[in-house]
Amino acid sequence: MSDSEPPMTRFPVPDLEDLPEDIREHIEEETERSGFMPNVMRAFAYAPHQYRAFFDYHDAIVEHSPLEREEIEMIIVAVSGANNCLYCVVAHGALARIYAKDPLIAEQLATDHTAANINDAHRAMCDVAVKLTESPGSIEESDFERLREHGFSEQEIWDIGSLTALFNLSNRMATFADMRPNEEFYTLGRGGE
Amino acid sequence: MSDSEPPMTRFPVPDLEDLPEDIREHIEEETERSGFMPNVMRAFAYAPHQYRAFFDYHDAIVEHSPLEREEIEMIIVAVSGANNCLYCVVAHGALARIYAKDPLIAEQLATDHTAANINDAHRAMCDVAVKLTESPGSIEESDFERLREHGFSEQEIWDIGSLTALFNLSNRMATFADMRPNEEFYTLGRGGE
Amino acid sequence: MSDSEPPMTRFPVPDLEDLPEDIREHIEEETERSGFMPNVMRAFAYAPHQYRAFFDYHDAIVEHSPLEREEIEMIIVAVSGANNCLYCVVAHGALARIYAKDPLIAEQLATDHTAANINDAHRAMCDVAVKLTESPGSIEESDFERLREHGFSEQEIWDIGSLTALFNLSNRMATFADMRPNEEFYTLGRGGE
Amino acid sequence: MSDSEPPMTRFPVPDLEDLPEDIREHIEEETERSGFMPNVMRAFAYAPHQYRAFFDYHDAIVEHSPLEREEIEMIIVAVSGANNCLYCVVAHGALARIYAKDPLIAEQLATDHTAANINDAHRAMCDVAVKLTESPGSIEESDFERLREHGFSEQEIWDIGSLTALFNLSNRMATFADMRPNEEFYTLGRGGE
Amino acid sequence: MSDSEPPMTRFPVPDLEDLPEDIREHIEEETERSGFMPNVMRAFAYAPHQYRAFFDYHDAIVEHSPLEREEIEMIIVAVSGANNCLYCVVAHGALARIYAKDPLIAEQLATDHTAANINDAHRAMCDVAVKLTESPGSIEESDFERLREHGFSEQEIWDIGSLTALFNLSNRMATFADMRPNEEFYTLGRGGE
Amino acid sequence: MSDSEPPMTRFPVPDLEDLPEDIREHIEEETERSGFMPNVMRAFAYAPHQYRAFFDYHDAIVEHSPLEREEIEMIIVAVSGANNCLYCVVAHGALARIYAKDPLIAEQLATDHTAANINDAHRAMCDVAVKLTESPGSIEESDFERLREHGFSEQEIWDIGSLTALFNLSNRMATFADMRPNEEFYTLGRGGE
Repeated sequence: MSDSEPPMTRFPVPDLEDLPEDIREHIEEETERSGFMPNVMRAFAYAPHQYRAFFDYHDAIVEHSPLEREEIEMIIVAVSGANNCLYCVVAHGALARIYAKDPLIAEQLATDHTAANINDAHRAMCDVAVKLTESPGSIEESDFERLREHGFSEQEIWDIGSLTALFNLSNRMATFADMRPNEEFYTLGRGGE
Repeated sequence: MSDSEPPMTRFPVPDLEDLPEDIREHIEEETERSGFMPNVMRAFAYAPHQYRAFFDYHDAIVEHSPLEREEIEMIIVAVSGANNCLYCVVAHGALARIYAKDPLIAEQLATDHTAANINDAHRAMCDVAVKLTESPGSIEESDFERLREHGFSEQEIWDIGSLTALFNLSNRMATFADMRPNEEFYTLGRGGE
Repeated sequence: MSDSEPPMTRFPVPDLEDLPEDIREHIEEETERSGFMPNVMRAFAYAPHQYRAFFDYHDAIVEHSPLEREEIEMIIVAVSGANNCLYCVVAHGALARIYAKDPLIAEQLATDHTAANINDAHRAMCDVAVKLTESPGSIEESDFERLREHGFSEQEIWDIGSLTALFNLSNRMATFADMRPNEEFYTLGRGGE
Repeated sequence: MSDSEPPMTRFPVPDLEDLPEDIREHIEEETERSGFMPNVMRAFAYAPHQYRAFFDYHDAIVEHSPLEREEIEMIIVAVSGANNCLYCVVAHGALARIYAKDPLIAEQLATDHTAANINDAHRAMCDVAVKLTESPGSIEESDFERLREHGFSEQEIWDIGSLTALFNLSNRMATFADMRPNEEFYTLGRGGE
Repeated sequence: MSDSEPPMTRFPVPDLEDLPEDIREHIEEETERSGFMPNVMRAFAYAPHQYRAFFDYHDAIVEHSPLEREEIEMIIVAVSGANNCLYCVVAHGALARIYAKDPLIAEQLATDHTAANINDAHRAMCDVAVKLTESPGSIEESDFERLREHGFSEQEIWDIGSLTALFNLSNRMATFADMRPNEEFYTLGRGGE
Repeated sequence: MSDSEPPMTRFPVPDLEDLPEDIREHIEEETERSGFMPNVMRAFAYAPHQYRAFFDYHDAIVEHSPLEREEIEMIIVAVSGANNCLYCVVAHGALARIYAKDPLIAEQLATDHTAANINDAHRAMCDVAVKLTESPGSIEESDFERLREHGFSEQEIWDIGSLTALFNLSNRMATFADMRPNEEFYTLGRGGE
């Protein structure tokens, strides 16, 4: 059994009591909701201005997107898998399982989204997200056409791009600082809940 | 929730009763032991001669290797993650969790073995396995030296190579035929058993 | 001579008068300061919530970073060159020329930062930024040590990571939407100013 | 002129007399048939259980495949060329020349199978084998359709996959142990025989 | 502001007076015409026989090609950008701006030719040049068809290949010797001349 | 047995009698010397000015280089193998066998120069040539130091670069035009001559 790990290994993790009031409250609310304190929050609090910017950016997309929440998490897991980002694969894998009500979807999307048990529209959505992740310059008009044919609206397509872009940021922050996912994320949404 | 999936999608899955006696018995014994019938067995039975050869090769390494079983499964999961093989990541991820008694190790090794919570010897072992997977020609004397410094014997080093080689075969068979892991594998070894 | 180009080709560019008050003012202030309206602002205004989040994130790093502004723009140009992002190479190339007071630095950093006429500390800084861009998983402890040896503080190192991460987002947004740099950016800072 | 080389450089080559009876006989039969003792046999005998498994696997495919023997060796040479495996390129290059009765085919398939003087069906067969070697995850339904259009049966297609998989194992064993081809293989089948 | 740089850093730059008469005159003529002495000439003079061969090869294509000079420079900049060659991007970027009468074209072609403001025929021309640069073996009949459909003659197509090939030589010479572009090249052709 | 192939497939091969006098004589001299007419000459004659430039460039290096002829051909085969260029691998493979008096060296260098039976100096020489071929920007001061430590002079090092550069041109011309090696090249230098 692995020992419990620190939230990140390459920078010091600040104590909660040393954090600005708004950040401490934000973390506490999330802890209340989740039942545990996500390591990404304790890690990002190393740079309080960036902490606020990161979570605001996330909310700016997620709270206003016409995409289903399940679709949002599918994109994030496929992108994070392509970037081999352990933190995001595990943490958002849990959210994907929960929102998609599918206990198998996280490993499928993170390992090889082309072998995932998803519908054709979601396959196209993940194909574009992974392509924009791995070789941004190869995105072309035909990718947009394919998404439109599957019924994605213009704003949904913009958000497929935005989420992919944001998690190319997030994956690099997590990998650079070596953030480690909480143990809770590994089992959340696997059924029985 | 994903629908239950067939063992593989690109070739017909033979009926158990049509299989040669020895293969049917081999599958039934494994089903008895595991509690379910691993899809790789039903899929590989498409070519009975190759079925026998594959499982014999596996046993030839696993039953005689000086490596710990936990180490064997760690190598397999790291290799299969590097090859993005869903079947092997999920099925051997379960075995890695069970043999290493670590419910978190599968996602760690499959996603980014450099972020896994493992000791330095196992890190070196996985580094070599992934290197031999991704760019065989770049293996050099210093890789062997590093393994020896971590205490691996000559025969253990040979088997690090053998297991990596076998799962470069296995990953390609599973991906080519589009084998899908049984649902049971996703949850085995996550604790509570 | 190329015709004047639209700010982006893959999504409609909103009219200024249709934008929320705060965004219109933000654009007008920048237009006042620069003498022209940067296309990235008109393009990002397509999604107002994300517009605010993007520029806030940028300011959260830039206004609080212990890195010199010249260093910030060097990182951005090296990262954007590695990602082949025309908008960011041209727009931040102008800023790099201005802040570094070096009319040659943009092409050098964007084309091949290892051939740029920069000091050893900046070379190390750009090496890490490009490595985190191209293969995040290969970042290792020795990269951090090298930056520390060149005198970068812990917070500066965090920000080398943050800027790289943010422009991996930004490059993908610009490439996905096919944003085109204003003609003014191509000549700004080339001397004579 | 190069000196005669040992069968492999990274592990000790066992003496024939120390080998299990069945392996010694197997090697002697092959030596009888070929006129020389292939280095892969002396090298693989380092691990007798794996020796048996490897040659059994090879025979399980080759002796039962509906593919022509010439096609089998073409696949092996194209795969081994893609993996830059000297041993397999040279040894199976000899077999390809002999079975295809074409003294030029080995260099063509190993260097660039798309420039080889082969028919369209064999070109498709090698394209799929090389694709499965280099990027297994990119195999898709259209690859299977193309093979079917060229007249390959379902079992032949399975074996294109199996042979590719087996030589992704074999290439890695030969490269890992640094096996060196016998001088005889370089000239066999070049005409005059 | 960067210090003035030597023509190359990895080999000694010969003195003009030590050069063979024909080479000195060739350099002086070019210096007369350009108003400055291009560093590539001083650098290549290290090996006088190769100096002559290189400039003869260049002239053999450029002076006889049915391609427009503007097209020639576009190919060179796209290829040099793909190879990340600072010298050729900057020097031929100046020529591309001058011959295409487009002050923006150099950064566009060098950074991402797919985002350049060029017509469809030139896009196809650059696509093939970059493909032949990055993965020569993937060139196929459809690439030739596409060029023909855009009206390129057989000899023009040969020269798209020749120029790409020559600058794959030139880029490697410049990168190997670490040749640095003259400061004049950075600003030539940006308008106002 | 393969049918005899045309010198190239993508452009028309000019008749000897239509060629300029000097080129016809040059081809006839080479045919006299070799006993057959190398296809590269008939193919390159499509563009007579470039024909002259190409062979002049080759001679400018080969006739004046302090490198041994055997070393020249070793570099060419290693580079051409890295670029998967069938024509150059086969034609210069023959020359490498002849000049190095080693019938095994061509396959070794073309397939995997790190497994070739060559001395350490030649290994370093080929390492640098292949590195400059595959990722020119990664060449660094340590590569030059390593060559110097193995006793290569400054002019020899320049020529390791020049030959690599020239065959990056040559490989692309042969691949673009789809030049096919004469059958004679496959067997030349294999012993018995």
